[in-house]
Amino acid sequence: MSKNTEHECDGISVGLVEKKLYTFAEPPNELTLASGARLGPISVAYETMGTLNDDKSNVILIAHALSGDSHVAGYYSAADPKPGWWNTMVGPGKGIDTDRYFVICSNVLGSCMGTTGPSSTNPATGRPYGLDFPMVTIGDMVKVQKALLDHLGIGKLLAVIGGSIGGMQVLEWAISYPETITAAILLATTTRHSALAIAFNEIGRQAIMSDPNFNKGDYYSGPKPDLGLALARMVGHVTYLSDEVMRSKFGRRLQDRDNLAFDFEANFQVESYLRHQGSKFVQRFDANSFLYITKAADYFDVGQQHGNDSEVEAFAKVKAKILVISFTSDWLYPTYQSRDMVNAMKKNGLDVSFCEIEAKCGHDAFLLPNERQSTLINRFLDRVSEEEKHDAL
Amino acid sequence: MSKNTEHECDGISVGLVEKKLYTFAEPPNELTLASGARLGPISVAYETMGTLNDDKSNVILIAHALSGDSHVAGYYSAADPKPGWWNTMVGPGKGIDTDRYFVICSNVLGSCMGTTGPSSTNPATGRPYGLDFPMVTIGDMVKVQKALLDHLGIGKLLAVIGGSIGGMQVLEWAISYPETITAAILLATTTRHSALAIAFNEIGRQAIMSDPNFNKGDYYSGPKPDLGLALARMVGHVTYLSDEVMRSKFGRRLQDRDNLAFDFEANFQVESYLRHQGSKFVQRFDANSFLYITKAADYFDVGQQHGNDSEVEAFAKVKAKILVISFTSDWLYPTYQSRDMVNAMKKNGLDVSFCEIEAKCGHDAFLLPNERQSTLINRFLDRVSEEEKHDAL
Repeated sequence: MSKNTEHECDGISVGLVEKKLYTFAEPPNELTLASGARLGPISVAYETMGTLNDDKSNVILIAHALSGDSHVAGYYSAADPKPGWWNTMVGPGKGIDTDRYFVICSNVLGSCMGTTGPSSTNPATGRPYGLDFPMVTIGDMVKVQKALLDHLGIGKLLAVIGGSIGGMQVLEWAISYPETITAAILLATTTRHSALAIAFNEIGRQAIMSDPNFNKGDYYSGPKPDLGLALARMVGHVTYLSDEVMRSKFGRRLQDRDNLAFDFEANFQVESYLRHQGSKFVQRFDANSFLYITKAADYFDVGQQHGNDSEVEAFAKVKAKILVISFTSDWLYPTYQSRDMVNAMKKNGLDVSFCEIEAKCGHDAFLLPNERQSTLINRFLDRVSEEEKHDAL
Repeated sequence: MSKNTEHECDGISVGLVEKKLYTFAEPPNELTLASGARLGPISVAYETMGTLNDDKSNVILIAHALSGDSHVAGYYSAADPKPGWWNTMVGPGKGIDTDRYFVICSNVLGSCMGTTGPSSTNPATGRPYGLDFPMVTIGDMVKVQKALLDHLGIGKLLAVIGGSIGGMQVLEWAISYPETITAAILLATTTRHSALAIAFNEIGRQAIMSDPNFNKGDYYSGPKPDLGLALARMVGHVTYLSDEVMRSKFGRRLQDRDNLAFDFEANFQVESYLRHQGSKFVQRFDANSFLYITKAADYFDVGQQHGNDSEVEAFAKVKAKILVISFTSDWLYPTYQSRDMVNAMKKNGLDVSFCEIEAKCGHDAFLLPNERQSTLINRFLDRVSEEEKHDAL
């Protein structure tokens, strides 16, 4: 990134960012995935903010959730109206302070925002993979991030931070690369999906796969399964909110009308909000990527995959200092799941801080401006970077 | 019903029931609906159990929920393998004791289980109504029930009982016909849908209306929108359960396999359970009826429709003694909604009993065998019938 260019926003100048691409695993040196399948070449879209310090000790990797991308914060140009997805948290002087830290964010494997996924060209056919794309796991996503860091010459991460499915990637980092990361920050996440979370993902997948335009995933040259993907997004959206926030945001308010319409149009504001969210999403996201990433999240299971069905055993490998944050109204990954995770970590004597933040916005709370969350993350990063400097003396 | 025929089940003989039909509102004397539309003729499917006593003082009306029907309990024949939907609650010696009470249950207006609905023949065209069927409200459903009771010569109800959307009908009875009902029993219900409840219904409706076989509701002579209706049912099913019951029922158990399959088939048991529920539902339910009944439930709003936006004012008309039951894990109609309802009733000095039952099964709890619920209902009915007798002296 170019730290001398600036963007004026709300009276504050912020650095501009640039989307970059790194390609590796060129055949015949494909990456071997958890399923045993081989995949290559792989391109990773990534962005950076801040300045890498001389001893490369100020690197923070941010892992995004289901529908995120590498554009975590900042603007692409001075005319760009929309900043990255976590601009409230990441930037100069913010919770994750890019005046101090060098922030990297990459698009996950299987997505459609620049990194190789089911919509990418299959070198074997010259056409998009579709469902010929191999199943990927959270572990595979992290392997790709590791390859990117190796390429950038970064051998150590001060912290890996992520919420939701991003948090799963952080857990995978802490377990699979214990020597590489100093700290792990886990927001609104879980060590494994509950049946409830799997159920909602499965409904979304069924909506996509039931769409007649789905055509077994081979829809790139024709009409897309937009109705199915929109439905999947609507289901997702409800699970990201909470009863409370929906009550205050919409209640039973009617749309453009004083009276009940007695028809099947969107009468209530919440109905038109959901329809809007659904139709907006299909313009930017690929239905197959939705299938692959939700399945990777459903498959993720720390204990089963790393500890012979024991989370305590899985966390025995971890060395990172850990901050876990959950939100009171998050019913997708409720606080009890964070507590279970923290308990399993503590049984290994790990340095874990846990905080449940009072928030009415549901699972989405980690993405929204939250003073408490920013302060907790800022101070935790402060502490671990100070301790790192001290340990290095 | 014939009280001399019996059915042997689990060693207990139970009375057989018979589905009957009452047709009224023959043109030009159609029923005027809340929307102003006129509908006729209307056929109502109903069933009765128990014996009507001489002074007709032992009548209980049971109102069913979204996908229910008139077959509340008992069997249709000695060979019938499956009893009615609330057989655990209704029958000789049960919570609602058909040795003492004469129970009536009718299928709601707009449904597809015998009562007139969108799949019925439109007399104007000789073809099924489809979306030409007028929108119906909970109030319209109750008007039809009232017409049935008038036909049966029953002027007074000892009690009206219902859960979920059935509970909304009970509220409508208590407010619109205060002189007709002595007691009202409200289970897992609400005075009006929250934005969350509307959102899930809207997702179900969108799933149906997005199905290419939907054909604007005119699908009766061709393929049906089965995929959309199945999806709607899957969404519904998740909202009827709870995180807790899904955890104990399915957890992360896999289906027929020892390992993750790395494909998009149903890997987890919860996935195949949902698919099964969806495909089972399309065999017995009409997609248009799903649209009409969920919309009626979303429109229902006691304060707005009966009290100038005040529930306290709406309940001022009520005379019935009331029992309200909610369930701890019901997140579709959470306990706080029952409490609000009870408070508004109490402000009118009504005789209200309220109980929140500890249950892990979610919204569905009212339909499942529950000793506590049975006892509460049984004793409440005991009390009100005793008080009725005393008042009549």
